[in-house]
Amino acid sequence: MPFSSTSATFAPPVMEARRWLDGVDFPADRPLINVSQAAPVEPPHPDLRAAIADAALHNDTVHLYGPVLGLPELRAEVAVSVGRTYDGAVSAAQVAITSGCNQAFAATIDALCGAGDEVILPTPWYFNHKMWLDMSGVRAVPLATDTGLIPDVADAAVLITPRTRAIVLVTPNNPGGVEYPPALIAAFAALARARGIKLIVDETYRDFHSQSGAPHDLFADPDWADVLIQLYSFSKAYRLTGHRVGAMVAAKETLAEVEKFLDTVAICPNQLGQHAALWGMRHLGDWLAGERAEILARRAAIEVGFAPLAAQGWRLMGAGAYFAYVAHPFEMPSHELAPRLVREAGILMLPGTMFTPEGDPAGARQLRIAFANIDAAGIDDMYRRLEALAL
Amino acid sequence: MPFSSTSATFAPPVMEARRWLDGVDFPADRPLINVSQAAPVEPPHPDLRAAIADAALHNDTVHLYGPVLGLPELRAEVAVSVGRTYDGAVSAAQVAITSGCNQAFAATIDALCGAGDEVILPTPWYFNHKMWLDMSGVRAVPLATDTGLIPDVADAAVLITPRTRAIVLVTPNNPGGVEYPPALIAAFAALARARGIKLIVDETYRDFHSQSGAPHDLFADPDWADVLIQLYSFSKAYRLTGHRVGAMVAAKETLAEVEKFLDTVAICPNQLGQHAALWGMRHLGDWLAGERAEILARRAAIEVGFAPLAAQGWRLMGAGAYFAYVAHPFEMPSHELAPRLVREAGILMLPGTMFTPEGDPAGARQLRIAFANIDAAGIDDMYRRLEALAL
Repeated sequence: MPFSSTSATFAPPVMEARRWLDGVDFPADRPLINVSQAAPVEPPHPDLRAAIADAALHNDTVHLYGPVLGLPELRAEVAVSVGRTYDGAVSAAQVAITSGCNQAFAATIDALCGAGDEVILPTPWYFNHKMWLDMSGVRAVPLATDTGLIPDVADAAVLITPRTRAIVLVTPNNPGGVEYPPALIAAFAALARARGIKLIVDETYRDFHSQSGAPHDLFADPDWADVLIQLYSFSKAYRLTGHRVGAMVAAKETLAEVEKFLDTVAICPNQLGQHAALWGMRHLGDWLAGERAEILARRAAIEVGFAPLAAQGWRLMGAGAYFAYVAHPFEMPSHELAPRLVREAGILMLPGTMFTPEGDPAGARQLRIAFANIDAAGIDDMYRRLEALAL
Repeated sequence: MPFSSTSATFAPPVMEARRWLDGVDFPADRPLINVSQAAPVEPPHPDLRAAIADAALHNDTVHLYGPVLGLPELRAEVAVSVGRTYDGAVSAAQVAITSGCNQAFAATIDALCGAGDEVILPTPWYFNHKMWLDMSGVRAVPLATDTGLIPDVADAAVLITPRTRAIVLVTPNNPGGVEYPPALIAAFAALARARGIKLIVDETYRDFHSQSGAPHDLFADPDWADVLIQLYSFSKAYRLTGHRVGAMVAAKETLAEVEKFLDTVAICPNQLGQHAALWGMRHLGDWLAGERAEILARRAAIEVGFAPLAAQGWRLMGAGAYFAYVAHPFEMPSHELAPRLVREAGILMLPGTMFTPEGDPAGARQLRIAFANIDAAGIDDMYRRLEALAL
């Protein structure tokens, strides 16, 4: 097959990891612990399910095409919510609804960049970001982070070239779990503004941030739209992964470009999912607070229980939102270790090599644990199995 | 804004056309006749709505991520259906479900082409095809058609260069309405095979084809997968435009590349829409036959009622599926005529300039009428208004 856009990138890591399960038996007393994907495994709140069913039965418009940039009521609700949470001025015309947050990222990149341009990504990075940049002919410029997975603004400044169009921050971070401090995010925004590029802040996991209130103050700047593009997903907050609904907040001029992409790739986000997201925003605030509390309890279990592994040479590099990111003590690269963990410990997690540039020695020492789907007892079970490993 | 992928193309035509309605009053005795978009305006069959509601309430999996390439049962159902209809061998592994047929096209192009490659499109073309090629840096090579909108294989052969990766046929055609004869489609497939390129056949409107049975015999060739990529949409057949579900049938190797694109841009098609499509395929065969009969009756009304317009110098170039494509007799380009038709006749239709290469004089003389949403009386009303025009 000749060169094509897709041939410039790798196969989907989650699908590859699922293939490691082929032919492996998991005994009933030691079932598979699947911490490979950041996805709720429980269905949404029953009232939300009822609202979806009601819309399917009684709202004719949910079955018809809607506007390319999304349901006007949902755009308005997001604008009000972001404005209130972040203490800034955001209009519905600055909000687009997308078919998931991955699509928001893809649309953003194609709106900002052409082939040969560059985008700076802290490493470890989210692999779908890297994949879309590859497919778009845009160079993903890795920005190494420190031992606590924090990127440095001065390091980023050095990487900016005339072809740089944006810096991407994911906070809380996937895969790293780390929450970037507001001052760090502000410093990146100032750098982007000074250099005439955009700052893309992917806040897919913001509903599970350990700090209450605004996780940054970028929207408080009345000129935020010159610099900031915020990405969001409804999938995690309301357990709507199967419905594919995300959002982005950006300058109207950027959304006019994004509209071309979304029209061509999606025509519109599916309507039932948008109604579900809107219903969730309007009715599930308290429920979501409980979900957050549970995720934060699991994060605490991740941190508190780590000591015996630390004594064996493991290191917890980051923990937050749905993720723990760890360094392992073994004399083998993580992409060999991860399939062995399936067979020898009954645990499926993704190797750091899936989140780092090819050949980067850091990734070979790292693993991502998407802990959101296992409770404190499950985390304890996982840790016991890891402690018992003899490789 | 610097050059970006989206800046290489134009704004969504349907959205632009909707703006022509701004500030125009339509009196109650002469309401707007909107024949701009190919979309059902009625909701789906009540039993299908009930099936969607039931899945939302009782099937937990519809709320969770599914496989990138789609629901296995739906892939299998499509494989059986295509195999039976086209008398060929198609496996579920050769079927991918997408978030609408536009996305299937985008994924196909990125799987086949890199920047600088070429794809041959008969003109008038479907504007979202042109837009995606522009955004991907792929040159859309126009293949002029004859006065009946039929492309010529020998003309296409001359356009093939070392950079050509595919020829795209849309049949029944959007915007032209014309149904390509099976022998013509076979001749294009033979050309593609001989020159080592792919033939992409977009059959979004195949459920409304005037001929019963297979509209071509390409799947009867046991080696079809070397050449053929078939695209399909569930939107029109089951009135599911708001749910965003399409499909493609292609070689497994092509789908491995497509999977990278779909994972990154969509993660998976929304699950409720897939269940709706599956339910429709299993239960709405007879209902769909009735839908087809009604569309064919409207097509007949388009053809039968055209004589008075023909006497005024209009020409019906193509009629089929949801579309009539006409040449108008006025001394003004269609992109000026179309907004005037809104103001002076209360009719919204799209100008040929939206479906033809920039500067192509043919497009300036043409208009697309998406007649599927108006019944025979509505078609008569539209024709009377056009006959009464004095421009």
